Amino acid sequence: MPSERNFFDLKAYLSEKKATVDRALEVYLSEPEGPTYDLISAMRYSVFAGGKRLRPILCIAGSEAVEKAGMDVLPVACALELIHTYSLIHDDLPVMDDDNFRRGKATNHKIFGEAVALLAGDGLLTEAFGLMTRSELLERISTDLILKVIDMIAHAAGYRGMVGGQVVDIQSEGKEVDFSVVEFIHTHKTGALITASVTSGAILGGGNETQLKAITSYGKKIGLAFQISDDILDVEGDSKTIGKSAGADERKGKITYPTVVGLSRSKEIQSELVEEAIDSLRAFDHRAEPLRRIARFIIERKK
Amino acid sequence: MPSERNFFDLKAYLSEKKATVDRALEVYLSEPEGPTYDLISAMRYSVFAGGKRLRPILCIAGSEAVEKAGMDVLPVACALELIHTYSLIHDDLPVMDDDNFRRGKATNHKIFGEAVALLAGDGLLTEAFGLMTRSELLERISTDLILKVIDMIAHAAGYRGMVGGQVVDIQSEGKEVDFSVVEFIHTHKTGALITASVTSGAILGGGNETQLKAITSYGKKIGLAFQISDDILDVEGDSKTIGKSAGADERKGKITYPTVVGLSRSKEIQSELVEEAIDSLRAFDHRAEPLRRIARFIIERKK
Repeated sequence: MPSERNFFDLKAYLSEKKATVDRALEVYLSEPEGPTYDLISAMRYSVFAGGKRLRPILCIAGSEAVEKAGMDVLPVACALELIHTYSLIHDDLPVMDDDNFRRGKATNHKIFGEAVALLAGDGLLTEAFGLMTRSELLERISTDLILKVIDMIAHAAGYRGMVGGQVVDIQSEGKEVDFSVVEFIHTHKTGALITASVTSGAILGGGNETQLKAITSYGKKIGLAFQISDDILDVEGDSKTIGKSAGADERKGKITYPTVVGLSRSKEIQSELVEEAIDSLRAFDHRAEPLRRIARFIIERKK
Repeated sequence: MPSERNFFDLKAYLSEKKATVDRALEVYLSEPEGPTYDLISAMRYSVFAGGKRLRPILCIAGSEAVEKAGMDVLPVACALELIHTYSLIHDDLPVMDDDNFRRGKATNHKIFGEAVALLAGDGLLTEAFGLMTRSELLERISTDLILKVIDMIAHAAGYRGMVGGQVVDIQSEGKEVDFSVVEFIHTHKTGALITASVTSGAILGGGNETQLKAITSYGKKIGLAFQISDDILDVEGDSKTIGKSAGADERKGKITYPTVVGLSRSKEIQSELVEEAIDSLRAFDHRAEPLRRIARFIIERKK
């Protein structure tokens, strides 16, 4: 449907969904008060530190690709953002990447101290699973599908997914490693949760086997493309725009696509992945247009 | 039913349930292999470091108190142990309590380093929610009850429960605080997950409203009694038996019941709580005998 395609405004779509996600997060994360004031403040600080809300938007768009009512998935979409945020807080800690800036702001432990930052991460990860059992979700979506999604997200975020990728990333710093190790880190550390984001939306939206297979394939491709584009931004980007220190990967001896296959081959791979991702969605109608456009956006972004 | 009561052997009960939980944990936590070898080894190291499995056993006993087939809850019982273990690993980190020994063994970060220990904790917390969606659970228990339990456990383990208690504990070290703060720390840091353990079992076992209310009351009382007995052991216990340094609370300026109300009043409160806990179960038959006996065991233990 070329006409619908021409009318689709990605910028407006992303900004509208981001605003919806932000409003929901405001409701889901209570205002700080009482003895745990600092903890809740720390959790909210990083959640509202200006994320793009890519994972929640992918979840909503994944649901829209298979049905109309994408907003039913909002608690799960927000849970994915909490998981992403917790991973950034823990990743920035001195015992991990030791970063002082994130999204142009001081990192969590720089403001709240390491102990509170660690616990804020733990609190966000735990609350993510709390969000996935919210009553408004249970009223609209079958409990079987919700449990399937909780299982998938726990798998993608845990030791067989994101946490596994982080361990290998930390342990590979400053070492000579095979291309297969870089691929493992990227597909696990970033790819797994991105794939789970779009696929969970499609599951909750009632997608059939064939649709879920196609969406999962799309998610894997853009997940890897996203991490490669992060690597490229670290080389080519400007610190002010990306909101963290450019060139940090090289200084830390991080294993990235540009260091292993070079910058120009990295860009080629990235573009191929995006084309393959879009091709995975060939059987979908105009309702998958946001996903197609997000795929291109991922490698065109400047931060 | 005094005859059944007389025949009940708590030691045999605890040891049989512990063996069952240990076998299940062996199945649930895969053997270390591949790039995440160290991560999985670190997760398994702390899970199999000799815990009493109190939370899983409370979950099973909570289920048995309302019905017969307590073993159906095994994945949730083990999930509670993973959550407890993750909290110990993070609690022992240098940025938190900075402990070198736990259960008579070197703490996780002393063996695997701080980064891997941090991620092992994250991996265990995430996998706990993965366990709660295992197929053998879904085949035996209604999805509504499972979701109710996931919600309750996320609440009890997160910022409104255990993580909230940990923050206040850390922030109160070396300060003069009110009795209400000590109570907050104890009911949140330890009490919340213990209450959730026994209540989740009763929910999954199909307990009715009245039963759940009684079991929750029991859980709250023994949760607080358990933490007070921990405080007392830290003063009176012998390092070798308790498996960590005795007197550590005092050296760290930790807020405990003995420091706030004195040792003898702490013991009185502890005994009162156990009697109240047992009284909460007065409407239950002999199937609640394990819970009654566990209540007394909690304050009689030497480690």
